[in-house]
Amino acid sequence: MAEAERKLSNGGRIDFQTEPSRYRHWKLAVDGDVATLTMDVDENAPLFEGYQLKLNSYDLGVDIELADVLERLRFEHPAVRVVLLRSGKPKVFCAGANIRMLAGSSHAHKVNFCKFTNETRNAIEDASEFSGQKMICVVAGSCAGGGYELALAADHIILTDDGSSTVSLPELPLLAVLPGTGGLTRVTDKRKVRRDHADVFCTTEEGVKGKRAVDWRLVDEAVPNTRLDETVRERAKEFAAKSDRPKDGKGVALTPLRLKRAADSAEYSAVSVELSRSERLATITVRGPDKAPPKSADEMVAQGAEFWPLRLARELDDAILDIRLNEFETAVIVFKSEGDPEAVLAYDAFLRANARHWLAREILLKWKRVLKRIDLTSRSLVTLIEPGSCFAGTLAELIFAADRSYMLIGRMNGDNRPPAAIVLGDTNFDGTLPMSNGLTRLATRFLGEPDSLEAARQAIGEKLDADRAEELGLVTFALDDIDWEDEIRVFLEERASFSPDGLTGLEANLRFGGPETMETKIFARLTAWQNWIFQRPNAVGEEGALRRYGTGQKAVFDMKRV
Amino acid sequence: MAEAERKLSNGGRIDFQTEPSRYRHWKLAVDGDVATLTMDVDENAPLFEGYQLKLNSYDLGVDIELADVLERLRFEHPAVRVVLLRSGKPKVFCAGANIRMLAGSSHAHKVNFCKFTNETRNAIEDASEFSGQKMICVVAGSCAGGGYELALAADHIILTDDGSSTVSLPELPLLAVLPGTGGLTRVTDKRKVRRDHADVFCTTEEGVKGKRAVDWRLVDEAVPNTRLDETVRERAKEFAAKSDRPKDGKGVALTPLRLKRAADSAEYSAVSVELSRSERLATITVRGPDKAPPKSADEMVAQGAEFWPLRLARELDDAILDIRLNEFETAVIVFKSEGDPEAVLAYDAFLRANARHWLAREILLKWKRVLKRIDLTSRSLVTLIEPGSCFAGTLAELIFAADRSYMLIGRMNGDNRPPAAIVLGDTNFDGTLPMSNGLTRLATRFLGEPDSLEAARQAIGEKLDADRAEELGLVTFALDDIDWEDEIRVFLEERASFSPDGLTGLEANLRFGGPETMETKIFARLTAWQNWIFQRPNAVGEEGALRRYGTGQKAVFDMKRV
Repeated sequence: MAEAERKLSNGGRIDFQTEPSRYRHWKLAVDGDVATLTMDVDENAPLFEGYQLKLNSYDLGVDIELADVLERLRFEHPAVRVVLLRSGKPKVFCAGANIRMLAGSSHAHKVNFCKFTNETRNAIEDASEFSGQKMICVVAGSCAGGGYELALAADHIILTDDGSSTVSLPELPLLAVLPGTGGLTRVTDKRKVRRDHADVFCTTEEGVKGKRAVDWRLVDEAVPNTRLDETVRERAKEFAAKSDRPKDGKGVALTPLRLKRAADSAEYSAVSVELSRSERLATITVRGPDKAPPKSADEMVAQGAEFWPLRLARELDDAILDIRLNEFETAVIVFKSEGDPEAVLAYDAFLRANARHWLAREILLKWKRVLKRIDLTSRSLVTLIEPGSCFAGTLAELIFAADRSYMLIGRMNGDNRPPAAIVLGDTNFDGTLPMSNGLTRLATRFLGEPDSLEAARQAIGEKLDADRAEELGLVTFALDDIDWEDEIRVFLEERASFSPDGLTGLEANLRFGGPETMETKIFARLTAWQNWIFQRPNAVGEEGALRRYGTGQKAVFDMKRV
Repeated sequence: MAEAERKLSNGGRIDFQTEPSRYRHWKLAVDGDVATLTMDVDENAPLFEGYQLKLNSYDLGVDIELADVLERLRFEHPAVRVVLLRSGKPKVFCAGANIRMLAGSSHAHKVNFCKFTNETRNAIEDASEFSGQKMICVVAGSCAGGGYELALAADHIILTDDGSSTVSLPELPLLAVLPGTGGLTRVTDKRKVRRDHADVFCTTEEGVKGKRAVDWRLVDEAVPNTRLDETVRERAKEFAAKSDRPKDGKGVALTPLRLKRAADSAEYSAVSVELSRSERLATITVRGPDKAPPKSADEMVAQGAEFWPLRLARELDDAILDIRLNEFETAVIVFKSEGDPEAVLAYDAFLRANARHWLAREILLKWKRVLKRIDLTSRSLVTLIEPGSCFAGTLAELIFAADRSYMLIGRMNGDNRPPAAIVLGDTNFDGTLPMSNGLTRLATRFLGEPDSLEAARQAIGEKLDADRAEELGLVTFALDDIDWEDEIRVFLEERASFSPDGLTGLEANLRFGGPETMETKIFARLTAWQNWIFQRPNAVGEEGALRRYGTGQKAVFDMKRV
């Protein structure tokens, strides 16, 4: 296993920020309420050195651009109701994740790459379900592996019926791995392909075309070339008619994040990240608003990307992604906050009052995605609630997303700020910010204590000091200033001493009590099995299929079934 | 990683059949409607050579006896309503799975050992929910890891409040692995322990005792020694009162299976297993009844273990377990059947007519468990439906449990038997035999086609030939005699050529479309993560925690989080 990371083509760290003028792999054309998003991967622009992105195959760099354009479609193009996903290459829609990239990348990169691509595909479905932006995927040519998994995220798949265009999931026969970007789960649970058909499909290298692809529900329709354009136009019209996006919404430009990065820190406008690498610790401090919410939705639109909730969400998202993929040795993320709880609640109230405005809706949906991304981050998460903090409403979710939380009773010697208080809001209860299991974080927390959930609801708006917060079950431990520093130091040291793998597995289980959804199935059943396979010599060993692909040498397998 | 298997203490293969007179580790005492099951592991009777079973730790051999006694409690002791689970050792309830056994066993054994222990614990919950046999676990002393996971399967956990008795899941801090026998899932989903409490609990080596254990819902009550016996008696009475088991049911002895094993075959009374090791193939042929069902429930009881449905279920179960743990290189299990479909349906009808009789109920529940065991067997499953077969009713489930199925159209040249027919029965629809996802196999199969499910229901009782079965979506492929042999040969060869790991992951995903339950969560989310960790050097490498446990040397971890 190649555990040393490949060298980044940019020589530095993976950058999750981009913008259309810098895209190498995607083209966006907007025409009224229909946008065409064309995948046209520049094979000479891989994220890492050492491979080419042939046949519209992708790596994390390609997916970062996709994630970016999908965000921009939502914020910058409120009038777009339908996105047509197409390929810019002849005879190939997309060949999936680049195999040489996979074969040469570390386990940690592979796993986090797949997690990010999964989140991006989930965001496509989120845009369709909650934001009225539907996606139609038009497949001409070969649509294989991750390419078909991308198609599966769309609302509707049109396959060209030209005798050669196919959809396929050839990962198992070709590479001895699984389609790891939701493919298996979407085949069985979204498209509800019969399980024996799915078995045949996923073990057939060459894929399925035409009528059989329709009969097995792998695609929605197979259309001859002569009728393709007309069909696409018709479907776009049909799907656009189902959308509730505004006809005349003025978009909001997602301007570049304000970020100053130093060796051990990242300073955004409302987020600070401090890295203590020797302690394997990252501290993320989020800052509350420094002014009152706007007077009107129009003013919110005018503030655009500077509007505090949107600005903070984007910065926090970037900070999390940076730690995930650039700081593998970080064991624990500590969340802190600074600001006025009431000011945070005022913004929550503003967003709720304008919830039917497209931009407010988008911002709430963005927060939902950012918080889900935190839930799914495989680092121990701890929230420290100290004097001067503003864990209220939306920001209080950072307490409930954490594996545990500590709250200071009273003040520290010499600190004149008022003691820490948590304030709950409707946002913590009303399902605006669900976890991927479909429940709110508080409902998940209190799965076995419906009375505690109700007691917390009764406390909405109350300034909850440490003792009261502990009594309500909202924090793990309330500590006084005598114990505070020691207890937290011991906890952080202990956490950093445990096996990182064990913690990853433990947290992936304990965080998601209660129901499973298609989304949690993807991140649990599918991903965990894929990660296992990504460790098995049959795939990643010197003689494994992933390593030997394209060498002309056949893989050698240990034939024991486990 | 020690991939060579340890030597079995019995010098041969793992034997899943046992009986009370041969138990080394458990004692059963029955007193009216209360049975006391005492774990008293003989440290000098491990299944494999090379370790001792100290402190009531267990290996597969201990669990085979547990599974056996649980089956006997249901069939041989219909009057037992409450099972008290206790330890025969002072100061220790159970130390969990034996660490040296785990450290020294192959990955395939570890994973299949955990699967079996999980199935045994699920069977405890099945007995409580469906068979009225409740379990109360009485913990005095240390109850750690797998010991606590065993307790978690009970309906009620009483912890001695003596200042030293504890429950704990120390796997992560001690061994860098997960509690892999359902522990994490039962903590969050069954006992609904708050997730931050669960985080503290699972990272605290020394465990939790007394009041905190009750407050966190880790146990149901903590009782001082002086009141322990009285409390146990009271609780036994309470739980017995909730049971619907017969007051005067005469048990049925689970007599030894009739089995002749040769090098490449196993011949039971109603099951034949043929091993073609060079093709990595096991063929299991089940045989229909050779006589009509009994005239009455009393006659069924008189037939006892010879009653065909019970006999077949026990034999099939044994055959599957033997392949799982003794034939790791088997890639594919082929199911065939021989007999009269009408005769099978007659037994189904008999069991349905007597469904309220305790024995009929137990037999149906046994079939449910055996079929679930098949669903969870990580071998490719294929069912061949040929002339002379009897895939009807309960036995038709073997078609729907398979990853795919082939049915012969018409006859083979020179074969005078009537063409193959499938006959569906109510049993295939009424939820008697659900998968672990809570749905019937047909409902899972037709998740996306409610009309097809209804069409199949309409065909109950019809003799469905190959074309009709294919049209109804009940088989994957209907083939004529010209294609039959070649198609199946190619399929089996292809299957045997794929990476066994890839297939394990693929099948674990495709078989379980639809909802997830606590049971599927255990076998997916929890088990898949555990299997991943069981591959990671931090646990199983030369310097890993599992290997170094007890050596005095500290484990060395790769500190990258994945």
